Amino acid sequence: MPSITTTPRIRKSPFYEATVAAGATAFTVYNKMFMPLSYGDLSAEYDRLIHRVALWDVGGERQVQLVGTDAGRLAQRLTARDLSGMQVGQGKYVAMCDHDGRLLNDPILMKLDEERYWFSLADADMLLWCSAVANEGSFDVVVSEPDVSPLAIQGPKAVDLAADLFGEWIHDLKYFWFRETELNGIPLALCRSGWSKQGGFELFLQDGSRGNELYEGISAAGTRYGIGPGAPNHVERVESGLLSFGGDTTPDSNPFEAGMARYVDLVTDADYIGKAALQRIATDGPKRLFTGLMFEGEAPSAWPLAERTPILVDGRKVGTLSAIVHSPRLSKTIGLAQIEAALVQSGASVEVTSPIGTHQALVHPLPFI
Amino acid sequence: MPSITTTPRIRKSPFYEATVAAGATAFTVYNKMFMPLSYGDLSAEYDRLIHRVALWDVGGERQVQLVGTDAGRLAQRLTARDLSGMQVGQGKYVAMCDHDGRLLNDPILMKLDEERYWFSLADADMLLWCSAVANEGSFDVVVSEPDVSPLAIQGPKAVDLAADLFGEWIHDLKYFWFRETELNGIPLALCRSGWSKQGGFELFLQDGSRGNELYEGISAAGTRYGIGPGAPNHVERVESGLLSFGGDTTPDSNPFEAGMARYVDLVTDADYIGKAALQRIATDGPKRLFTGLMFEGEAPSAWPLAERTPILVDGRKVGTLSAIVHSPRLSKTIGLAQIEAALVQSGASVEVTSPIGTHQALVHPLPFI
Repeated sequence: MPSITTTPRIRKSPFYEATVAAGATAFTVYNKMFMPLSYGDLSAEYDRLIHRVALWDVGGERQVQLVGTDAGRLAQRLTARDLSGMQVGQGKYVAMCDHDGRLLNDPILMKLDEERYWFSLADADMLLWCSAVANEGSFDVVVSEPDVSPLAIQGPKAVDLAADLFGEWIHDLKYFWFRETELNGIPLALCRSGWSKQGGFELFLQDGSRGNELYEGISAAGTRYGIGPGAPNHVERVESGLLSFGGDTTPDSNPFEAGMARYVDLVTDADYIGKAALQRIATDGPKRLFTGLMFEGEAPSAWPLAERTPILVDGRKVGTLSAIVHSPRLSKTIGLAQIEAALVQSGASVEVTSPIGTHQALVHPLPFI
Repeated sequence: MPSITTTPRIRKSPFYEATVAAGATAFTVYNKMFMPLSYGDLSAEYDRLIHRVALWDVGGERQVQLVGTDAGRLAQRLTARDLSGMQVGQGKYVAMCDHDGRLLNDPILMKLDEERYWFSLADADMLLWCSAVANEGSFDVVVSEPDVSPLAIQGPKAVDLAADLFGEWIHDLKYFWFRETELNGIPLALCRSGWSKQGGFELFLQDGSRGNELYEGISAAGTRYGIGPGAPNHVERVESGLLSFGGDTTPDSNPFEAGMARYVDLVTDADYIGKAALQRIATDGPKRLFTGLMFEGEAPSAWPLAERTPILVDGRKVGTLSAIVHSPRLSKTIGLAQIEAALVQSGASVEVTSPIGTHQALVHPLPFI
């Protein structure tokens, strides 16, 4: 892998020093922040996530904060999901779309109080989008990027660790719900969330100067559960069918093509950008769908796939592969793709050409596990 | 330096394969695209830029295109500079600001025809900003990211090379002016521009499938001038005082604090976002200014500086250092900083603490050379 040059233009997360001390070997850039992707033993990292608990620096998931009397109205304007019943302390997975219904981001929206919301974002400068909409419209809202950086604990033992750290009340937190609290005086919002299906929490640190202290405190407290460093896990996320915005999607993808149909509300009174376009797309039916692929025989497992790869049927391009991994739990090579809707619905057989040959795969529903 | 993980989320430029073949060793991520920063011998790369001609993959400078009857009006709305006299074929260095006058980007704006403009952008998702302003307002414009990727030739021999390739008419191109043309049938816009003060051109490739062919053609044609691979050169750009948006600036910087005062038009009729805020800032006077620092004695030359470093006077923080290099042409260690305006105006002496000690430096006007 090529090396990356450090520069003030790309930020370090508040947990950076701690992750380097823990042995981080490979990074990506996410929202103009370095994010560790591996600590040198991907197999051990997968194992910790599936069987114990993993500690992830996901500080690159930046927040956009809306504060003001119109915060709720602006949050709705920016979100293709009906927020009318949303409660304080609740989070929702939402699609943000442009005026043509194209997916701009798939954040968790968190309602901190009636006049304060966070979008917890995938990789895109959504501060620009939110700020332009707020100020070119007439919204009494201050839009900003607050000093908030998530640290995730993920895996089956995360719940025990969270109970040790925060108390038994954490068992009452429903998925995507959160509470503002503290840990040894470090302010944070504890949310039952995270980019895996193994369960866990994200700790939204609210004081960037205390990131390494938080990381090391969690790491020490988790020793009894076999905690260790990790990162959003490419193998597990493919098994679980979790969308990587910008990786699995293209700039022209709409939420129906990204597996987010259930999060788009078309028939309510909610007023949001892109609604008319999404209604048209829903009526016509999306052209492509996000789906799994299960490879037959001894297909190569490339980690990671460096770029999207064409998928063919009878020599005709019918979609693109965006991820391919070997699943230890399935003992199969599996992938994620966007493929023509009719072929997904019929469970078609397709071809993918790799550097070592042409491979057969079957469309497979998500998640795999 | 840590390694970077490849992923479909981060694009390869159309020149990627050619740059790898040419020996690219270090990359950054710029507008979600890999951009080579070195070919393993920074000294030789500097030498080529200063004395001969260097070939740079700057495909990461993405364009936002405005097309439509209101393209000119929208370009003005987005730009803190009076565009009323702008001609087809002309480019201008402009500041894009938010409603509070904060600098969002410092692109070259290019007018391709009366209804078609490109912003050639620094590192930020300005497509989101431009699209929101266009669609939340009432502009009859289609905003998109076109298939346009710049390749730069920079250095004193670039003009001879360009004349060989395109003809003697290139001598009539004024700085930042451009012409749409082709090279061996490859469509491109040739612009007299580039992120150095050594002179040169940017070739805005308009067919991404032909990037490696263009790179290799230019490379072959430039052999007689001693062409070789390079990248936006950190040493030369500090000597020349060229702003790195997002590196030298912080999210709250306004254009006056970024050395862009001469590009902000406050007294014309031009209607643009942030004008009222910029008028207030101009009246009050900017708090900080972008300036050079010349270090005394044997200051350490760190390349690159990984993060902004505090600048002190009598123990009080008065600014931040964002770049420090050893200048071969000055035989001095020099840097770039944002420092309190009064100290810049008085040419103050300041202190910077590095890992090996505390160093004295004098405020120095830009450019150094």
